[in-house]
Amino acid sequence: MKKFAVVLSGCGVFDGAEIHEATLTMLAIKKQGADYQIFAPDIEQHHVINHYSGKEMKEKESRNVLVESARIARGDIKPLDEFNSSKFDALLFPGGFGAAKNLSSIAFKGSEAEVDEEVKRAVKEMLAAKKPIGALCISPAVIAKIIGDVKVTIGQEEDTAKTIEAMGATHIATDHGDVVIDDNKMVFTTPCYMLEADITQVWDGAYNIVEAMMKFME
Amino acid sequence: MKKFAVVLSGCGVFDGAEIHEATLTMLAIKKQGADYQIFAPDIEQHHVINHYSGKEMKEKESRNVLVESARIARGDIKPLDEFNSSKFDALLFPGGFGAAKNLSSIAFKGSEAEVDEEVKRAVKEMLAAKKPIGALCISPAVIAKIIGDVKVTIGQEEDTAKTIEAMGATHIATDHGDVVIDDNKMVFTTPCYMLEADITQVWDGAYNIVEAMMKFME
Repeated sequence: MKKFAVVLSGCGVFDGAEIHEATLTMLAIKKQGADYQIFAPDIEQHHVINHYSGKEMKEKESRNVLVESARIARGDIKPLDEFNSSKFDALLFPGGFGAAKNLSSIAFKGSEAEVDEEVKRAVKEMLAAKKPIGALCISPAVIAKIIGDVKVTIGQEEDTAKTIEAMGATHIATDHGDVVIDDNKMVFTTPCYMLEADITQVWDGAYNIVEAMMKFME
Repeated sequence: MKKFAVVLSGCGVFDGAEIHEATLTMLAIKKQGADYQIFAPDIEQHHVINHYSGKEMKEKESRNVLVESARIARGDIKPLDEFNSSKFDALLFPGGFGAAKNLSSIAFKGSEAEVDEEVKRAVKEMLAAKKPIGALCISPAVIAKIIGDVKVTIGQEEDTAKTIEAMGATHIATDHGDVVIDDNKMVFTTPCYMLEADITQVWDGAYNIVEAMMKFME
């Protein structure tokens, strides 16, 4: 049975992992006969956003990325520093601002951003092993920052596409459910909620990217 | 287009709404051509559980049910006191301990529990209007506490089944994806994660309950 490592960045679109993308990625993996283990870095979130008001929490609250990601994982999650690329067939990043705020500083520093060391290690190990790396929504920007010369999509949003190109990557504009495949680097990306999408379109994206990645596993 | 009101109880299985059940309910509704509006009561959570350790947060943190539910809703959520039964064709409660800890005190007081006043009002209005009311996982116990004489399922867990019978309701044992229909009260229930389930079985339950409810809408 093929096994995916799924890396989360918190729990909630505005300061963590996008919940629908994370959940539907898990469903897509299981539906297609594969299995997954969820990981997240054991680091503090950049900040905490009140998802009802859209504003930062008044009393400077702090939350941990691993602890909050565990909500989506129902407790079945491991710290990312325990990730061992030899035990997995693929690595997959759902989206959400957490990818740009916690896994990296792309939301604040654009193409000059830093990326979390454990995220960098996980991606580089899979790249070296020529195993599929997938990313949804804004997460392809993190992959672009790590790899540089790689072909990815975040949909059609021009500013983010320019940021990605400034990292040395190539951006391909896409629509709902489309998957861009860089078959040299084995990197798979799909826009999901980076487009104005409803949940059925996000399901299409999650299903299609898992399907595309599985075709490249032997 | 048929419209569901979906009521959440926070964000995370151990102290709020079960995230997969909530997300897959939304996908099931949209996939079957209907639409939804998400609601949650504007009340404090009973407590906050660290979903990584399984323990209560050390520093007595407090979180709001509406604010945390907004994470699953991507901000598109209304306080439950704005729910108007004349504007909806159906009412649906995903599961998670939040149903037994925040929407009611069933986790602590069993059959003697209290139920949140707004939850009670929403259920009673739909009951009076003879519109379908659905509940997943542990939420059927909340419906049983409000209605009393009603036929429901929470799967096969005997203690909870006894609690439900002590409320005056009838419990029917079920397996993955089964839906119990009380066609007199128009109440629909399915076990999901009250059984040892994987995410594809929860998807079956969410899909089947929405399908069953839609057959009763005209």
